Amino acid sequence: MYGSTWDDTIIALATPPGVGAIGVIRISGSRTFDIVNALFPSKDLQGQPSHTILVGLLQYKNQVIDEVVLSLFRGPRSYTGEDVIEISCHGSPFIQQQVIQTCVEAGARLARPGEFTQRAFLNGKLDLAQAEAVADLIASSTEVARDTALHAMRGGFSIVLANLRQQMIRFSALIELELDFSQEDVEFADRTQFYQLLSEATTLTQRLMNSFKYGNVLKNGVRVAIVGKPNVGKSTLLNNFLNENRAIVSDIAGTTRDTIEEILNIDGILFRLIDTAGIREHTSDVIEQAGITKTKEKIQQADIIIYMFDASDEDFEEVLKEVAEYDQSRLLLIGNKTDEMYEKTYIIDGEEVVAMRDYDGLPSIFQHEGDRVKFISAKEGEGLDEVRKAMVQMVFGSKAPADDTIVTNARHFDALRMIDKCLTDILAGLDAGVATDLLALDVRRCLHYLGEITGEITNDDQLDYIFSKFCIGK
Amino acid sequence: MYGSTWDDTIIALATPPGVGAIGVIRISGSRTFDIVNALFPSKDLQGQPSHTILVGLLQYKNQVIDEVVLSLFRGPRSYTGEDVIEISCHGSPFIQQQVIQTCVEAGARLARPGEFTQRAFLNGKLDLAQAEAVADLIASSTEVARDTALHAMRGGFSIVLANLRQQMIRFSALIELELDFSQEDVEFADRTQFYQLLSEATTLTQRLMNSFKYGNVLKNGVRVAIVGKPNVGKSTLLNNFLNENRAIVSDIAGTTRDTIEEILNIDGILFRLIDTAGIREHTSDVIEQAGITKTKEKIQQADIIIYMFDASDEDFEEVLKEVAEYDQSRLLLIGNKTDEMYEKTYIIDGEEVVAMRDYDGLPSIFQHEGDRVKFISAKEGEGLDEVRKAMVQMVFGSKAPADDTIVTNARHFDALRMIDKCLTDILAGLDAGVATDLLALDVRRCLHYLGEITGEITNDDQLDYIFSKFCIGK
Repeated sequence: MYGSTWDDTIIALATPPGVGAIGVIRISGSRTFDIVNALFPSKDLQGQPSHTILVGLLQYKNQVIDEVVLSLFRGPRSYTGEDVIEISCHGSPFIQQQVIQTCVEAGARLARPGEFTQRAFLNGKLDLAQAEAVADLIASSTEVARDTALHAMRGGFSIVLANLRQQMIRFSALIELELDFSQEDVEFADRTQFYQLLSEATTLTQRLMNSFKYGNVLKNGVRVAIVGKPNVGKSTLLNNFLNENRAIVSDIAGTTRDTIEEILNIDGILFRLIDTAGIREHTSDVIEQAGITKTKEKIQQADIIIYMFDASDEDFEEVLKEVAEYDQSRLLLIGNKTDEMYEKTYIIDGEEVVAMRDYDGLPSIFQHEGDRVKFISAKEGEGLDEVRKAMVQMVFGSKAPADDTIVTNARHFDALRMIDKCLTDILAGLDAGVATDLLALDVRRCLHYLGEITGEITNDDQLDYIFSKFCIGK
Repeated sequence: MYGSTWDDTIIALATPPGVGAIGVIRISGSRTFDIVNALFPSKDLQGQPSHTILVGLLQYKNQVIDEVVLSLFRGPRSYTGEDVIEISCHGSPFIQQQVIQTCVEAGARLARPGEFTQRAFLNGKLDLAQAEAVADLIASSTEVARDTALHAMRGGFSIVLANLRQQMIRFSALIELELDFSQEDVEFADRTQFYQLLSEATTLTQRLMNSFKYGNVLKNGVRVAIVGKPNVGKSTLLNNFLNENRAIVSDIAGTTRDTIEEILNIDGILFRLIDTAGIREHTSDVIEQAGITKTKEKIQQADIIIYMFDASDEDFEEVLKEVAEYDQSRLLLIGNKTDEMYEKTYIIDGEEVVAMRDYDGLPSIFQHEGDRVKFISAKEGEGLDEVRKAMVQMVFGSKAPADDTIVTNARHFDALRMIDKCLTDILAGLDAGVATDLLALDVRRCLHYLGEITGEITNDDQLDYIFSKFCIGK
C-alpha cells in the first residue's frame, strides 16, 4: 500500500487539536519545498539551508492565511528522511485547518496515522522497534514509561536483538555450509560454541520475555481491586493514598480517569484502583446480584487484590476463610484500625496474643506476620509506606528489571515467544543429534522472528497495521 | 506588576494541551539561552546564530528527558523581542510537563496568561491594539474573523488611529501654543482646517463604531431564535441549513457546540441557532412554564428572531398579531410549505388572492411581499437562499464594512465612544466660541482616548487585565 503512494507529499497537524498559542503543521515529501514556497512567496525556500527558520505570510490566491514561522529540514536530515517543513501558525483550529487545506490544494495529501514515522522507517531512519517506541513515548505518562520508550526509540532494544541476530546469522551461514558438504560429514559450526550461543540467547530471550510483565504494567498500569466488608476503612485508605498522590496525576493533562477508577503513581508505576464499594455477598435482589457479578469479574481480572479487614474486630481465622477463594499470589491482606486494637487479645494462628503498641508506633504482635499481612491505621496514616512497597513488590517480585531494555509491546513479546520455542527446538535437536538440514530450518525460523521485531522482515499489511495505531501527524 | 518581574525568564506550553505527535514549549527572557543550554549540553547555544534549529537530548541531572528540536530566536528578532527558544518535544503531556518543570528548576518561571504577548507589547514589537488582535486571531473560527484579526494584528487598525492621532497632536500643539500667547489674541490653529479635521475624525470614528456591530458578530456570532407553532417545519428548515453547512463547522476541531445550539456558517458569519422547540403558550404546568420563560428570555436576547408559519394553512393576519410582541427590526417572517399552497386562496392585507406556482417555482402571489415575508418550501429546499441573504442583511443592512478595519474589541469601542463624545464637545465649543483653554482640554481628552486604544497611554492594572484574558503560552 505505501509503495504506491510513497512519492506523495503528506501533511498533518502535529500538535494536539484545539485552541493554543500556536499549532504546528508538518509536511514531508519530495514536493514539500515547492508546495510551501508556492504559498510563501516572500522568500526562495530552495535557496535556504537546512535547519533554518523563516518568518512571513502564508498566502493563497492573494489572500493572507496567517503569519507563520517555517522550520526547514532537508532530507535526509529530517524526521522522515525526506524534505520536511514544519509550519507554525496561530493556534486557532480554523487557521490550522485552512493551512492544511491550502497545502492540500497546492498538491499535498493528508497523511494517514503514523505515516511520517512509517516513512522514517522505510527510509532507514529508525528500525521497526524504534518506530513503535515513538508511539509509546507519546503515550507515556510516567517517568519509567518515558525512560523505557526513549531507550527503545534510541535503539537500546534493537541493539540487543541485532547482536543476537548477528551471531545467529554467522552460525546459520556455517550450518548452511555444512549442508552443501553434507556428503563429507564435516562440521564447520563449532557445536560447543553453538551450545554457548544458544544458552546465551535463551537467557536473553527469557529475560526480555520476563520484562514484558513489567513493560505491560508500564503501558497499561496495574489493576488493583480493594475488597473487604463495609466500614473496614477502604475509602479512608483510598483517600489517604490519593491525597498524597493525586496532585501528581492530575497535573498531567490528558490522563484518562474513569469515574470508577482512581489512579495512583507509586515509584513511576500507575496503579489503577478499582472501586468495589458496596459489595455484599448475601442479597436476593436480582439487579444488585448482577452488579456483584460484575464486581467479582473485575476482582478476577485485577493484578492485585487487596483484602482489607478490621484487625481490631474481625477474627483472623475467619478472614483467612473469606480470602480462600482468591488467587493467593495476587492477594495482599491488610489489617486496618491498628489504632483501635492496642492492648486487645487476639487469636492468631491458634495462639492467644495481646496487641501492644511498640516503640515504632505499630502493634508489636502483628510484626511477626511479615509479608502475609500488612497492619495499618488508615485513619492515622500509619503503615501506608509498607503497603505501597508490598504493592510494587507484588508486581515485580524482588527482581526489578536490571537494565532499561524492557519489552512493552505485545507484538515483540509474541515474536520472543516464538524465538524461545525455536531455541528450545534447536537445543533439543542438537541433543538428539538430528540432521543438519533440520537444524538449519530451526535456525532460519529463529532468524525470521528476530527480524520481524526490528523490521528486517516485514510485509506491507503488517506495517500498515502497526502504523495505523499511531496518531495522525506522527 | 510586570515591571518588577520583567527580568524573569518565562516558560509555558504554547501548543494545545493533550496528546499529539509533538508539543511546543516556549521560553523567553534574558536567561533563556543559559537555562536551555544547561539542559542541552551537546551544543553551545550561545555560539549559534538566530533562527537556527538544533536537534539533541534534553537532560537534567544525567537523566534524559526527551529527544527535542530547539528553535533559536535571538532578541529583538523574536516574538517577544527577547531571546526566545521553542522546545519541540514528543507530544506526551507527561513529557511536556517534565520539560517545563525541568526548565523551572533551572531558573525559568511559569508564564502568566498572555505574558509573552505582553512582553512583545512592552518591548515595542506590537502596539496594544495589535497585541489584542493576536488573541482574536487565535480565537477566530471563520475566514472573515481571521482576516479582520490578521489585518488588525498587522497594524491596519493602528495605522488608521495613528494618522488621526498625529493630526490631533498637531492641532493640539498649536492650540496649546495659543494658550501661551492668550493675552495677544492670536490663532495659530487654522479654525477652518480644524473644522475639516474634526469632521473627518467624526466620520472615521463613527465608521469604526458602526463596524463594531459587525465586529461583535464576527467574534460572538449572531444569535438566531427560530419560533413558530408546532409542525410549521422549524426542524426541517434547520436540518436543511445544517445538512448543507454543518460539514464546514464540524471540520473545525474545537468549535464549541452546545447541545441546544447549532452553528451555521453563512458567508463567513457564524449564526448560532437557538432551539426553541416545544414552546407552547398555554400550559398550566409550573415546570414547563419555567422552561417557556427561559426560552422567551433567549428569544429576547436573540439578534434575529425567525418566526415561521405554515403559509398553506395559517391566516396571515393572525400571524401578524402573533408576532406583534416581537421587536420588528429583529424579526424575519418565514412562510413555509409553499409546496402545499399552490392554487389556494389567501387573504393578504385584506385582499383575496389565489396562489399560483410561477415559472421560477415559487408562488407568484407572495413575491410582492418583498422583504416582509420570505416564502419557502423547507421540504423541497426552495427559497432557502433568500432566507440566508435576508439573515445576513438583517445583521449588516445593505452596508457591509467597506474595508478590513473593523472594531471587534469592546474596549476599543468604549474608547471610540469617548472620542466621539470629545469630538462633539470640541465642535460645539468651536461653534459657541468657547475659550481656547477649554478647547485644549477637550483635545487633550480626545488624544488620551486615542492613545488608550493603541497603548501609548496605559496603566499597569489595565495591561494586566487585558493580557489576563489571553491563553497561557501566548
